[in-house]
Amino acid sequence: MRNNDENAAVGDVAMIDACPDRPSTNERQTKLFFSSDYMEGAHPAILERLLQTNMEITAGYGLDKYSQSARAKIRSACDAPEADVFFLVGGTQTNATVIDALLRSYQGVIAAETGHISTHEVGAIEFGGHKVLTLPPHNGKLAAEDVERCLESYRADENRDHMVMPGMVYVSQPTECGTLYSLEELEHLSSVCRAHSMPLYLDGARLAYALACPENDVTLPDVARLCDAFYIGGTKCGALLGEAVVIPRAGYIPHFFSIIKQHGALLAKGRIAGIQFDVLFSNGLYDEIGEVAIRAANRLRAALAENGYKLAFHAPTNQIFVTLQRDQASWLAEKVEMAFWENVDDEHVVMRIATSWATRDEDVDALVEVLGAGA
Amino acid sequence: MRNNDENAAVGDVAMIDACPDRPSTNERQTKLFFSSDYMEGAHPAILERLLQTNMEITAGYGLDKYSQSARAKIRSACDAPEADVFFLVGGTQTNATVIDALLRSYQGVIAAETGHISTHEVGAIEFGGHKVLTLPPHNGKLAAEDVERCLESYRADENRDHMVMPGMVYVSQPTECGTLYSLEELEHLSSVCRAHSMPLYLDGARLAYALACPENDVTLPDVARLCDAFYIGGTKCGALLGEAVVIPRAGYIPHFFSIIKQHGALLAKGRIAGIQFDVLFSNGLYDEIGEVAIRAANRLRAALAENGYKLAFHAPTNQIFVTLQRDQASWLAEKVEMAFWENVDDEHVVMRIATSWATRDEDVDALVEVLGAGA
Amino acid sequence: MRNNDENAAVGDVAMIDACPDRPSTNERQTKLFFSSDYMEGAHPAILERLLQTNMEITAGYGLDKYSQSARAKIRSACDAPEADVFFLVGGTQTNATVIDALLRSYQGVIAAETGHISTHEVGAIEFGGHKVLTLPPHNGKLAAEDVERCLESYRADENRDHMVMPGMVYVSQPTECGTLYSLEELEHLSSVCRAHSMPLYLDGARLAYALACPENDVTLPDVARLCDAFYIGGTKCGALLGEAVVIPRAGYIPHFFSIIKQHGALLAKGRIAGIQFDVLFSNGLYDEIGEVAIRAANRLRAALAENGYKLAFHAPTNQIFVTLQRDQASWLAEKVEMAFWENVDDEHVVMRIATSWATRDEDVDALVEVLGAGA
Amino acid sequence: MRNNDENAAVGDVAMIDACPDRPSTNERQTKLFFSSDYMEGAHPAILERLLQTNMEITAGYGLDKYSQSARAKIRSACDAPEADVFFLVGGTQTNATVIDALLRSYQGVIAAETGHISTHEVGAIEFGGHKVLTLPPHNGKLAAEDVERCLESYRADENRDHMVMPGMVYVSQPTECGTLYSLEELEHLSSVCRAHSMPLYLDGARLAYALACPENDVTLPDVARLCDAFYIGGTKCGALLGEAVVIPRAGYIPHFFSIIKQHGALLAKGRIAGIQFDVLFSNGLYDEIGEVAIRAANRLRAALAENGYKLAFHAPTNQIFVTLQRDQASWLAEKVEMAFWENVDDEHVVMRIATSWATRDEDVDALVEVLGAGA
Repeated sequence: MRNNDENAAVGDVAMIDACPDRPSTNERQTKLFFSSDYMEGAHPAILERLLQTNMEITAGYGLDKYSQSARAKIRSACDAPEADVFFLVGGTQTNATVIDALLRSYQGVIAAETGHISTHEVGAIEFGGHKVLTLPPHNGKLAAEDVERCLESYRADENRDHMVMPGMVYVSQPTECGTLYSLEELEHLSSVCRAHSMPLYLDGARLAYALACPENDVTLPDVARLCDAFYIGGTKCGALLGEAVVIPRAGYIPHFFSIIKQHGALLAKGRIAGIQFDVLFSNGLYDEIGEVAIRAANRLRAALAENGYKLAFHAPTNQIFVTLQRDQASWLAEKVEMAFWENVDDEHVVMRIATSWATRDEDVDALVEVLGAGA
Repeated sequence: MRNNDENAAVGDVAMIDACPDRPSTNERQTKLFFSSDYMEGAHPAILERLLQTNMEITAGYGLDKYSQSARAKIRSACDAPEADVFFLVGGTQTNATVIDALLRSYQGVIAAETGHISTHEVGAIEFGGHKVLTLPPHNGKLAAEDVERCLESYRADENRDHMVMPGMVYVSQPTECGTLYSLEELEHLSSVCRAHSMPLYLDGARLAYALACPENDVTLPDVARLCDAFYIGGTKCGALLGEAVVIPRAGYIPHFFSIIKQHGALLAKGRIAGIQFDVLFSNGLYDEIGEVAIRAANRLRAALAENGYKLAFHAPTNQIFVTLQRDQASWLAEKVEMAFWENVDDEHVVMRIATSWATRDEDVDALVEVLGAGA
Repeated sequence: MRNNDENAAVGDVAMIDACPDRPSTNERQTKLFFSSDYMEGAHPAILERLLQTNMEITAGYGLDKYSQSARAKIRSACDAPEADVFFLVGGTQTNATVIDALLRSYQGVIAAETGHISTHEVGAIEFGGHKVLTLPPHNGKLAAEDVERCLESYRADENRDHMVMPGMVYVSQPTECGTLYSLEELEHLSSVCRAHSMPLYLDGARLAYALACPENDVTLPDVARLCDAFYIGGTKCGALLGEAVVIPRAGYIPHFFSIIKQHGALLAKGRIAGIQFDVLFSNGLYDEIGEVAIRAANRLRAALAENGYKLAFHAPTNQIFVTLQRDQASWLAEKVEMAFWENVDDEHVVMRIATSWATRDEDVDALVEVLGAGA
Repeated sequence: MRNNDENAAVGDVAMIDACPDRPSTNERQTKLFFSSDYMEGAHPAILERLLQTNMEITAGYGLDKYSQSARAKIRSACDAPEADVFFLVGGTQTNATVIDALLRSYQGVIAAETGHISTHEVGAIEFGGHKVLTLPPHNGKLAAEDVERCLESYRADENRDHMVMPGMVYVSQPTECGTLYSLEELEHLSSVCRAHSMPLYLDGARLAYALACPENDVTLPDVARLCDAFYIGGTKCGALLGEAVVIPRAGYIPHFFSIIKQHGALLAKGRIAGIQFDVLFSNGLYDEIGEVAIRAANRLRAALAENGYKLAFHAPTNQIFVTLQRDQASWLAEKVEMAFWENVDDEHVVMRIATSWATRDEDVDALVEVLGAGA
């Protein structure tokens, strides 16, 4: 078992803001870690490249040659030769910056109730002045029909001038529930948006894990063709940090550089993100990162099925949501760190298992064994 | 001469937002680079540590042991054992987040007209809803007397309830002009602020270069004692990125973790900043980083004086502001990249020379030679 | 039938964009108007007093003697001798200003999904940076148990520091559905809020119509005792415009005057609101205004019942929600202007009938007759 | 002397925080009042019309026939047959709403340092997210050359993408100092703005007093021709409240109705503003209102000159700024209420005398007499 130096026990989280400096947790060499996909540093190829280029002198703010090279590779991977590409730092920041750039003050963004912007960004969208107009999700996804109905209902409402106008649509691929939009679903959403001249924006925080999924039929060029803006996630897909915003039609968001700066999202040493994306989009690394995680997740899904575990819902990407009896969950929690998802009833709970680019075969083997014992 | 792969020629900057992807600049092996202090990656000791710890598993969001260790070292260096310490990504973001956290909606922040928040943050403070109340600078510094007068004038004004209330004071050490507050000046400012129950916040983007300066008499414990919040700069002082916000009195800003998240300033892999500050505050590295830059700057200042160059104003830190004749500036520009500062008149211009932790002796030698030739 | 001049010429409506299909309303001398409670000017006693005082010279911004007198009367009516009282112009403005004043940036306001701030204020709360945290309504009302559960759920959530913190509770009395909180319900809500140190704010846009309602058991002193801020509606209760914000504990919102000004909600001629509230709270006028409307509504409710009409839900104040067959609705629409409320199914629709201080006995007689004919 | 009821009892003032020292104003039957132009109610013709129409039933939100009629008359007076016209409540609100509607988030508004939005709106523009980019005034006015220079300087700055982009220009006519833009000056400003595709917005809070001024050569059609948006002031020019925003090119600000609502600036009983502007623009009343004030001001200016008083600067409209010796000022203060403007030195102070539509000949006679005695 590799050296696992740290975790944040559930009990600690309760004190986050009061006590940022909670007692460091003990080393637990004997535990498995499947609670999230951002627990390690970066893919080794990225660190190596940062090291190689470290003492080179480059311009700041993303004007360096590595950022330019990364942009070229991303355009190529997206089959979007004219696209504007910008590198930001993290997901919440990226969502807040893009959404604020695309909306007028009286407009809101349509999102699923389970969307990241609806739930876990401390109201960053509202801080920028905009309402998140939530619709009930279907396996974590927005249905094009629901969006259409929402728009029709807005337009038919005699009081609509007193209401927030739907101004864009936010989706995530994979969703926060690990589910996937099919190409047909995304095309439908896109056509509804275009029929109403409304931007479609896709949050790809975990995009690598969607792209590598056997049942996925949405490619990067599809995303670039169907969306007006999207971001390719770095932080959760092998980078130290960084998200690549792609705007397929160049100039679609005028002055986006200044908007990024105003939102505090501009890296002075822009190359730190540029180099990482340059590596991620070289030699198929972004694909490989996804594949490692999906292979691991599929092995775990098979083991869960074999041992009679019940999945809370079908999620084909790197996140697995398993319904456990509470005593079973407690027993497992001693062996493996998973993430709490939700309470079902007095006797059952849903836990999340996440794999990543960094999940090793021996970790999966060990977890398969534990799952067999705990079934 | 070391491998200098990149620069952003002045002419390119004109196109930043229209064309983020301007033609990559040619390698110019024969040029010296003294235009800023964020042109390289990170101090090698930092990269080494990132590499060593890369595959360890840690909690996210700054709850990891490296962030905890860095906090402990920063508290110790600041002689502020109770301080809250948070790691953010960049300067504009940090200023916007802290200032927004400290002000009520009807309050503004007092700053020098030359303050970074007044000039080069695309109105990030205003985006958060607050006015920057500018006062004329004295060598880039706010005078305590001016702050006092501003407060008195506000309080004496019968229309003050129709005006923005001064709610805090922003200073930078060193200032944007490379100048330094003396301990006496900072104490005076602090006592004015405390007499009016108003937070004093210090932007330490380049703090290492102040601390290492022979004529500086303000220590980190002084800053912690005199300010209510401040940040220790990482990005411009040897880190890939990262700024450490120190709040000497624990709990002074309630729920600052959530405020950081809301401002899009929370790193998922918080350890990336934590590890870097842990290294910066080990073995005197932060001091050393400053000393390298100041030694280089002092050698250049001596060479400039020796060769009859005229400094625009006295600035003892890592930035040197030299007044040049325009043809002299053109001649130098072919040999060394400096930053444009301001036009004086038809015949003169002020250029900025910046050293950093990464400035090598041979670079200084070469520039001294050029300066001799161009005098 | 009285002279009904109302029209909104079609050609002009184009100017009010996105509002093209509001039914044209040429002069309809033969029609009854029961569509809202703000179709006339002001109660004659108010206009008379404005006329009497018109040429007097007073201070601006609410410092005049009429505003002071109105404050004293409101404090007395609320049995809140220490209360701060401010006069603003309209409901959306008042809600946005008070809520922004009470929340910190990372906090949101709990409201029913049907709350005015959730639906018909074009996101004014979000414009101020805050999320509206909606809960499902019970007859338009928030249940204290739901608020309690929402708070518990927030506190129990391990990710709460990544979520919007519930910071206050918004209720309206009567609700947007014309329903009433009982004293017990309001006391329960208040005790939940106080147990969590969270302000309770009450929107009293139509408060007169609640106070005059026979089944209401919540008095103004109750509201002042149980809420931390509330407003007594003027616009919909007989004034030309104006809402009186009452803050029972003086100083509870520091610098509220400046906050009002910043929100563009400060009247230069503050006496215009002051005089109106001074009249409203003299000689029992505010009570009388409510009673006229409730008497009319009760007569209509009786006539509806007698004629076999079905009410959509029980609403005891000045708004009546009646379920109609579509052809029945069309027939009635030719005789009486009501407000569209919602579609039930292909055959049924809910329409709203509103009475007000200005509803005359002969209007009620005429509508009773129409209802008999249309049953 | 007429009945002057104004007072702001000291005890109440405590409630309006931070405003403790406003001079108490018990009934002063023996005093003259020249401190501002919003001390009375409305022009009697307005009140009369409000009374006549009071019980008519009209649509809300400005869709009524009086608002439509007022719009038609304003379009005609402005020779702008296509103009959009909206009625808001007060000046700060109007400025904040229009400016927010015209700017993108990364843009600021250019204004004179003495501009109302720069000084006396508690940062309402910043609350909406925008910086006020101030330029030094020339007699309260922006010089077109300065605006041009500011734009050139922004465009020439290599760091402009890190700076707030000038996005529009704000002027007021008359200015806060009572001075006037000449037609030539306004044309120059307009041509600079149009050359840079930047909206020009004019704040006409006291526009009647400019239009009526003999030395004014800027007509309403000129304003409509040269500006992209402006407002015709009601509150300070004879109305109870209300400002008419004119947008000469229809549709120039899409969804302005919703923007108004979001800013809390939409009157439910929109006709209250509509009726007032309908009266103001009937029978030359708006002109007459200005003329009364200017005639009075001119008589006072003559009396001041005759008696050797020194004006602080030339201001030809309804505001007069007179430099007084401090003991002279104290003596006068017992006889006449003026507004404090600024301290000159230990011995001199500038006071403001304001006339209005409500200034009577006998008031002027009395003040002329006092001025003679106090010279």
